[in-house]
Amino acid sequence: CVAFEVRKVEIGSVNDASGLAALIDDGAFGADDVFGIIGKTEGNGGVNDFTRVLADMAFDQVLLERGTRGQSEIDQIPMVWSGGCDGVITPHATVFARVDDPNPRPEPRLTAGIAMSEVIQPEDIGRPAMVEKIAHGVRDAMKAAGITDPSEVHYVQTKTPLLTMETINDAKSRGQTVFSEDIHQSMDMSNGTTGLGIAVGLGEIDMPTAEQIGKDHSLYSSVASCSSGVELERGQIVVVGNAPGVGGRYRIGHSVMEDALDFDGIYRALRSAGLDLPDRPHPGDIDERFVNVFLKCEAAPDATLRGRRQIMLDDSDVHWHRHAKGAVGGVTAAAVGDPAVFVSVGALHQGPAGGGPVAAIVDVGD
Amino acid sequence: CVAFEVRKVEIGSVNDASGLAALIDDGAFGADDVFGIIGKTEGNGGVNDFTRVLADMAFDQVLLERGTRGQSEIDQIPMVWSGGCDGVITPHATVFARVDDPNPRPEPRLTAGIAMSEVIQPEDIGRPAMVEKIAHGVRDAMKAAGITDPSEVHYVQTKTPLLTMETINDAKSRGQTVFSEDIHQSMDMSNGTTGLGIAVGLGEIDMPTAEQIGKDHSLYSSVASCSSGVELERGQIVVVGNAPGVGGRYRIGHSVMEDALDFDGIYRALRSAGLDLPDRPHPGDIDERFVNVFLKCEAAPDATLRGRRQIMLDDSDVHWHRHAKGAVGGVTAAAVGDPAVFVSVGALHQGPAGGGPVAAIVDVGD
Amino acid sequence: CVAFEVRKVEIGSVNDASGLAALIDDGAFGADDVFGIIGKTEGNGGVNDFTRVLADMAFDQVLLERGTRGQSEIDQIPMVWSGGCDGVITPHATVFARVDDPNPRPEPRLTAGIAMSEVIQPEDIGRPAMVEKIAHGVRDAMKAAGITDPSEVHYVQTKTPLLTMETINDAKSRGQTVFSEDIHQSMDMSNGTTGLGIAVGLGEIDMPTAEQIGKDHSLYSSVASCSSGVELERGQIVVVGNAPGVGGRYRIGHSVMEDALDFDGIYRALRSAGLDLPDRPHPGDIDERFVNVFLKCEAAPDATLRGRRQIMLDDSDVHWHRHAKGAVGGVTAAAVGDPAVFVSVGALHQGPAGGGPVAAIVDVGD
Amino acid sequence: CVAFEVRKVEIGSVNDASGLAALIDDGAFGADDVFGIIGKTEGNGGVNDFTRVLADMAFDQVLLERGTRGQSEIDQIPMVWSGGCDGVITPHATVFARVDDPNPRPEPRLTAGIAMSEVIQPEDIGRPAMVEKIAHGVRDAMKAAGITDPSEVHYVQTKTPLLTMETINDAKSRGQTVFSEDIHQSMDMSNGTTGLGIAVGLGEIDMPTAEQIGKDHSLYSSVASCSSGVELERGQIVVVGNAPGVGGRYRIGHSVMEDALDFDGIYRALRSAGLDLPDRPHPGDIDERFVNVFLKCEAAPDATLRGRRQIMLDDSDVHWHRHAKGAVGGVTAAAVGDPAVFVSVGALHQGPAGGGPVAAIVDVGD
Ligand SMILES: [Ca+2]
Ligand SMILES: [Ca+2]
Ligand SMILES: [Ca+2]
Ligand SMILES: [Ca+2]
Repeated sequence: CVAFEVRKVEIGSVNDASGLAALIDDGAFGADDVFGIIGKTEGNGGVNDFTRVLADMAFDQVLLERGTRGQSEIDQIPMVWSGGCDGVITPHATVFARVDDPNPRPEPRLTAGIAMSEVIQPEDIGRPAMVEKIAHGVRDAMKAAGITDPSEVHYVQTKTPLLTMETINDAKSRGQTVFSEDIHQSMDMSNGTTGLGIAVGLGEIDMPTAEQIGKDHSLYSSVASCSSGVELERGQIVVVGNAPGVGGRYRIGHSVMEDALDFDGIYRALRSAGLDLPDRPHPGDIDERFVNVFLKCEAAPDATLRGRRQIMLDDSDVHWHRHAKGAVGGVTAAAVGDPAVFVSVGALHQGPAGGGPVAAIVDVGD
Repeated sequence: CVAFEVRKVEIGSVNDASGLAALIDDGAFGADDVFGIIGKTEGNGGVNDFTRVLADMAFDQVLLERGTRGQSEIDQIPMVWSGGCDGVITPHATVFARVDDPNPRPEPRLTAGIAMSEVIQPEDIGRPAMVEKIAHGVRDAMKAAGITDPSEVHYVQTKTPLLTMETINDAKSRGQTVFSEDIHQSMDMSNGTTGLGIAVGLGEIDMPTAEQIGKDHSLYSSVASCSSGVELERGQIVVVGNAPGVGGRYRIGHSVMEDALDFDGIYRALRSAGLDLPDRPHPGDIDERFVNVFLKCEAAPDATLRGRRQIMLDDSDVHWHRHAKGAVGGVTAAAVGDPAVFVSVGALHQGPAGGGPVAAIVDVGD
Repeated sequence: CVAFEVRKVEIGSVNDASGLAALIDDGAFGADDVFGIIGKTEGNGGVNDFTRVLADMAFDQVLLERGTRGQSEIDQIPMVWSGGCDGVITPHATVFARVDDPNPRPEPRLTAGIAMSEVIQPEDIGRPAMVEKIAHGVRDAMKAAGITDPSEVHYVQTKTPLLTMETINDAKSRGQTVFSEDIHQSMDMSNGTTGLGIAVGLGEIDMPTAEQIGKDHSLYSSVASCSSGVELERGQIVVVGNAPGVGGRYRIGHSVMEDALDFDGIYRALRSAGLDLPDRPHPGDIDERFVNVFLKCEAAPDATLRGRRQIMLDDSDVHWHRHAKGAVGGVTAAAVGDPAVFVSVGALHQGPAGGGPVAAIVDVGD
Repeated sequence: CVAFEVRKVEIGSVNDASGLAALIDDGAFGADDVFGIIGKTEGNGGVNDFTRVLADMAFDQVLLERGTRGQSEIDQIPMVWSGGCDGVITPHATVFARVDDPNPRPEPRLTAGIAMSEVIQPEDIGRPAMVEKIAHGVRDAMKAAGITDPSEVHYVQTKTPLLTMETINDAKSRGQTVFSEDIHQSMDMSNGTTGLGIAVGLGEIDMPTAEQIGKDHSLYSSVASCSSGVELERGQIVVVGNAPGVGGRYRIGHSVMEDALDFDGIYRALRSAGLDLPDRPHPGDIDERFVNVFLKCEAAPDATLRGRRQIMLDDSDVHWHRHAKGAVGGVTAAAVGDPAVFVSVGALHQGPAGGGPVAAIVDVGD
């Protein structure tokens, strides 16, 4: 049967994919088995962060040289690169490979599936139509992953279209309007609407009204990790969860951080994934069964944390994205005793306001 | 007898000292009782961080308006402002006031003392002569604080001279040499040599050789917090510890963080100060007895943390000072459940390499 | 009769107003004569740039100590502090004092006037109502300055209200709408609408339609310098121009820079102010008659300059404001041979797109 | 005979080398003719500026695909990538190709030559031995370029070794000392010593004493552009100048900027290269004969410019490198009417203190 191998490798310098090469060379999985990659790279995490390009080129190159797939096939592999190793975060990649396992288990194990949504028109973005199309796509990706129980979906990574001047004009030429002509808002809104679509698709919330989209922060998915890009016309949806009948050694779970200091949320996610932890967990309890955690964090929207003033939203030198990643990255690394953790920012409708979703993957053994 | 009142106040905007004013108006202590202030302000923590100036002016103003001391007397009060509220750190000040207490206790309580060292010549900086002068000054400050047991000193805050072109030329004109003519190095070296002087003064280490100063990172004080300034010719030394026969409700303790993720070091310091904590402490155990913690952090000199690559030393956009404060500030705030913590950087001979000293003050009650 | 004295002083350190003190002590004018101040300070020019506060406090203090006006009267004096001495720009202030001159001249000389607009409702911002209220206020300020010919107005400095959550709710409670509920947009829009109001007030353009506000970049004032603040409910308008019957030695003129490299625009403004310049001007032609130039600059909206790609809008580390000030500050300082020039950013409806207005003041002698 | 083709191409996005591809495809020169490339890329210009890597990969790729040379041969081609398009500078590359020209000219035309110096030992760096080895290498590179008159050398680009912990230990193991064990100083010192070596090699100065190296700022080369890297053990020296008997349409000249505002230095360099300019040059005089200018700039060491205070050395948010490039890039782009100019920083012994060398290349026609 199918099984997933999940391995974390350090990125030793900006364009180093030797960790992936070593895994392939050592037989952990084949180059052609690589199903997806999620990594942190060392740039500024902003518009001109080219470390994502360099990592992508390096990892592509390893797959090209060691496998049989061509560049265009490799371009189809979901590779999510999040820039910004602020504070103590170590550049690294988590590699998901889909392999054969002759001995499937009855207990659920980690599985993943990919689906493309219907075409998302510019006039859909930020509106109920997009929520529905994403919700539908999430259910397709669940099917592809072999997951029937929505509560066994613990991580949904998406990439959805943005508004551009071109697509706005296209909508207008068809007599349509767009939710806003401010294209700078459209990234947040595309991601947030997608977060709601995931929540609807998984039954976390009921279908929201148009007015709630982007406004009602009490509505969110606890498993969403949404990004967007100008080059897309459909949403790319990757669902990771657990399903019975799947092989391999890995399980995934999730929880949320209620705020930037809530490291209990990280331990809850690890427990949800199947890691035995005592009542009062401590980094010393985290052992080689730990694979990785995946968090979204954000500045507290009211600029307070536990009642204390926060200055990150007012810093014109260092973007709040960097402040948030620096602090939450430190909290996360301390909680698990490992700085190679995936912490990214920006979480409209993705986890509670001021906090964010936490997914965790553990190696539960044979 | 003498007693110390120790209170933490938020700085609600860059030049807000209303917290201090309220304490005085509410009778916590008198304006003329204020003995010293240690605070975090919201600037970049670098050369052009003027938030320190604004805080100092605001706190001075409150003392001027509500007390009888003039500006020149108020300028003598040790006020330590550390810029840089990276990540989640909240701008705040810890105010130490020296008051009368008719009911001294037999158990040791928090006390503090100030001394000025002998004149530190430019040719002394970075050399054994400075170590000795500081060590002597530390013992003077202990006496002023009424502390006889060096192990009851838990925090030593210093301000010492730097090399400048003028003082280098002065040394040369007297036929002397200086340890280095690179004035940019002299801040680290003045602070580091002072760290060793504190360690010698308190018996933490034996007198180092000239070669060990600035080089042998195994030598350090666990209670030193050293800064420097061009305007000084002597070292200003403030010692904070516990002594019997002192009144008040406060105790101080200390420990070290072995690295940026070692939050156990924070709990060790709180226990050392007298806070009862269970075996596996949790932020939920921290209650209103908690006053504040004071940490120094730094980039790991070998650019690794728990064996993982660290990128902060290579970031030309955001200084590693900001990365370190962001991450360690997050860890500290999470450990104590309060973002109003004192975390500053730069720790040559101040705590272990890659880590740093942690002092903690708790309110142990009457 | 009335006359204006216009002097430029360096700010020698972040809170240095000794240049103003020296002018008063030397008799250039009295402390109570100071009418307005426009200066550059050395901060980041962003939200957390506190150097503006420090300069304001320092200049206020000199006026308090040397004059008879109290703090609240001094707070009424227009002091415009623009943060950001990027590149080579020197922190400095241009001080305008209103003095008596027994010998008025028939030729026009520099004069200035202040007016407050009608109350600008939240629902007015970004709409024709605000354009009209500002246009009316500009004509009031002209009257106060004694200027009858709109073509003799060369610099209009304004400060107008922003939208806030409170004022948006206030508008709604009265059954009104606002142009946008995105409060981050409201600074640009308040400034831009004001720019159009100035242009209408001075007859530079006809009354724009609602649709043109914020959109039609071909509409602008060539003499507008607009800022905004949350604390206002009316627009504060300072008009600087020339009028006959005014005394003093100074004249003002203006032109525009068509793009960031158009230093001819600076020479055109100087000529317009009355400085004799040869056909091909050179910094060597600029002598002690030069007082200062006041420019607004911005990133080219299409990210090209003279057909070449510009990267400043894509830099997530250093804001394009800083790039633009750095480059245009260099161009301006080179053109006049003096780095103490006033260059600020942000110019919606203030000068041509990608360029900006240039005002120049010269000392034309007795 | 030999001739050089010199062409400037924009870099349209961070890894765009289509401009080079187009030149080859259009027959301007062959891929195998490319002799060297000097370009500006859009990163921060610091340690973690990876835009240089991306440009290098992209330009290499074009040469690989369109020529017969392999990667290792292409790695030998001098490609100098300077990060930092601060202000208005456009990312671009100047490509030098060595072609055949059946019709050499009697008048001197642009030529270039490469030489490797003797091995530069760690103990040589910052000392007279390195000056001598570089001076010798410069004369070798002149020979390779066919230049006999040192005054016809107008640009010398070098890359020389740095000190590292390894090479310092190697020197010590051989009983040698190094000029300083502070490896952070060694880049400036390697470049500065090389600047003096160039000056000696070209007869601009006499052999300096050991004490003058790095200290006596009155000693410099006006044609030096020096960089360094850890991977080298010899100095790579590229000399560009003019020689008779060479074909092609190009000439090079040089001058210096005395300070950051001295745009006359740019016009002097263009005249030196053979461009006819009127007495008072203006950007309008610069026509299609202009190819490019190459400048080094720096912060004024005494933090004043034309007697005015400069704040760039005190900015802890934005490095002075960025301030200097922003301002001088603006001045240069304005002087020539083209933002695609090569402006880099850091100029110990390379041009006058506070200013820097300017080389200019023009197309003087057939
Ligand atoms: Ca890829
Ligand atoms: Ca003070
Ligand atoms: Ca004021
Ligand atoms: Ca190359």
